[in-house]
Amino acid sequence: MTHIIQGGSITSPRGFVAGASAAGIKYENRLDLAVVVSEQPATTAGLFTRNTVRSAPVQLSEHRMTNGAARAVVVNSGCANACTGQRGLRDAESMASLTADRLGLSPEEVLVASTGIIGTYVPLDRVMAGLQMITLDVSQGHAFARAIMTTDTSSKEIAMASRYHGTIYTIGAAAKGSGMIHPNMGTMLCFISTDAVVEPSFLRDALKRCVDRTFNMVSIDGDTSPSDMVVVLANGLAGNERFDHTNGAVFEETLGYVCEHQARAIAADGEGASKLLEVAVTRARTAEDARTAARTIACSMLVKAAVHGADPNWGRVACAAGRSGAYIEPDTVSMTLCGVPVMSQGIPVPYDEAAVRTLLATNHVTIGIDFALGTGEATAWGCDLTQDYVTINASYTT
Amino acid sequence: MTHIIQGGSITSPRGFVAGASAAGIKYENRLDLAVVVSEQPATTAGLFTRNTVRSAPVQLSEHRMTNGAARAVVVNSGCANACTGQRGLRDAESMASLTADRLGLSPEEVLVASTGIIGTYVPLDRVMAGLQMITLDVSQGHAFARAIMTTDTSSKEIAMASRYHGTIYTIGAAAKGSGMIHPNMGTMLCFISTDAVVEPSFLRDALKRCVDRTFNMVSIDGDTSPSDMVVVLANGLAGNERFDHTNGAVFEETLGYVCEHQARAIAADGEGASKLLEVAVTRARTAEDARTAARTIACSMLVKAAVHGADPNWGRVACAAGRSGAYIEPDTVSMTLCGVPVMSQGIPVPYDEAAVRTLLATNHVTIGIDFALGTGEATAWGCDLTQDYVTINASYTT
Repeated sequence: MTHIIQGGSITSPRGFVAGASAAGIKYENRLDLAVVVSEQPATTAGLFTRNTVRSAPVQLSEHRMTNGAARAVVVNSGCANACTGQRGLRDAESMASLTADRLGLSPEEVLVASTGIIGTYVPLDRVMAGLQMITLDVSQGHAFARAIMTTDTSSKEIAMASRYHGTIYTIGAAAKGSGMIHPNMGTMLCFISTDAVVEPSFLRDALKRCVDRTFNMVSIDGDTSPSDMVVVLANGLAGNERFDHTNGAVFEETLGYVCEHQARAIAADGEGASKLLEVAVTRARTAEDARTAARTIACSMLVKAAVHGADPNWGRVACAAGRSGAYIEPDTVSMTLCGVPVMSQGIPVPYDEAAVRTLLATNHVTIGIDFALGTGEATAWGCDLTQDYVTINASYTT
Repeated sequence: MTHIIQGGSITSPRGFVAGASAAGIKYENRLDLAVVVSEQPATTAGLFTRNTVRSAPVQLSEHRMTNGAARAVVVNSGCANACTGQRGLRDAESMASLTADRLGLSPEEVLVASTGIIGTYVPLDRVMAGLQMITLDVSQGHAFARAIMTTDTSSKEIAMASRYHGTIYTIGAAAKGSGMIHPNMGTMLCFISTDAVVEPSFLRDALKRCVDRTFNMVSIDGDTSPSDMVVVLANGLAGNERFDHTNGAVFEETLGYVCEHQARAIAADGEGASKLLEVAVTRARTAEDARTAARTIACSMLVKAAVHGADPNWGRVACAAGRSGAYIEPDTVSMTLCGVPVMSQGIPVPYDEAAVRTLLATNHVTIGIDFALGTGEATAWGCDLTQDYVTINASYTT
């Protein structure tokens, strides 16, 4: 009933077109400016960074989100337009106005997102020239996903189609991640398009719930960015019976799948990462305890370094749980690495170390930790810590 | 009046002897077992890890600390005796008993500390054999400091002499740090000896205050260990007028200097570190806000990687402050890197990038951040994040 559209993108839902160009914002000759546009006004919901330091585009887009409707998003990579004060806010407004002019929309219908270096101003002349080079087309969804990348090594997109009471609707998404990624916020950029008809308050609530258990459970490095946002535009062109709080569970399930797919892609493509790390906490006293412990473990530098080295150093996992703030009783904790029990009721259990090292050497490492206290559970996603992470981030602004 | 004793160690105060041996606990032919002993019962205070997962020696020593008096500490490196359940507790008690037998003390007079791999049992036969090889002498203070090292690259010791109303008293200390180091706990092992006469409750309070502003402001990697403790033994042989809450400020100042010296040494010798990072927050709304922001910045992987690369990426510092939980107003924040202003009132200020890069390339990097909100201030110490940190921790258990 619900399936992934092969080669799908943010323009897979009806009535969405996109475009991208190489505006030379930080580097020459790479896509760094992108626009996605809905044919008609779309019901809009968004979540934004919780960092106190918020980029100008985050401030502007969150403010415009109060309308609950938008037609377009303009995004640039290479410059975050953060820590740029009043001039930054004016620049973000200019980006929206220039885009609105180019598309024949009103500036209030345009959301803005920027990602890249903090503390530099957006080169508006290049944005203006770049907008002129953009050709909007349904085929340009993939170009949109490429243009929003920074240190990402692959674009992150998905589209899913689903049927509801005989009507097919589609959800598409493009995301970027890589560095400055940590739970408890938007954690990155993700733009989601859908042609489903969705009641506005349900769209907001469903997005919040989906983001909480997907993007907010991803951590690359514990650092949160001032730029992050997740935005969904629902233009209603599928013509389905409107989804709301009474009948929207099926829509939310598909939306959640899209979010989880993008969240996992961001984790697996963390800066310098060679592996996806998946941490599942079960039987915590509360769901919040499970979330806290899972995120702390996925974020521990020592756990991440051990995962990189395929080193079954499970004591580090226990310690990360112990400092997470989640309630645990050390004597009831059990643990598996890639499915193999290594700790039971708080003490070591014998295991085949060579076999576990082989499992840890694959590109998908799972850690299971069972607190045996209650029914709380949660999964967090992260990646290994590599020498390349340090190399990338020791010379980021150059 | 107060001065550092050149070549001083934990045995510099009167009435302390130490010894160490290579017991083969993890590696052959390196010192890994050490004892420090006071000639007579010493007033004792200690602070222990706040990680919920606590090593057996931490549990045992904290319990024995309730006496407020001890004669000896036995320490091993190579095995943390953590996540070892009831057997681990029995093993820690056996270590104390074996040491007491060797020294002619009662087991209750012996504190135990262990550091190293989590989730392995202490090889008691090797501890027993190692204890027999130890020769106690005032000259063995340096050997004690070397024996407690794990991935430390240098031993960390200091002794200071001070005069109070004509009487000279001495404080000596040995510490180990390196990995799994983060504020909000003991953060490492540090043993402090003094011949001063100190009233027990004042000793506890003074130690707590000193540790809060020194060891608890050090972060290497955000991971806390189950093994950490700071212990001070005051044997009273200096015969000074007893220090208490009314007259102890001079003693506390010297103790604080010893703690800060050891804390900075631990930060500078963080696993893989090539630089000491010192973060000073000023004019925060509260002292707690200043502490929170300073520690978060010193702990940020992205800040640490930029420091490693001598990259003046000050936006990362602003973002770390923004996510720290400290109250800030982005438009009032100013910042210096190695004394050079780079951000003022929330926006970039022009600076000589080549000159700042040269300053950032030295082995002591300072970040100053001024919130312009109140009178709270704090300093945190950390280190850069290097490729070597990853390399060391990707294969720690091997």
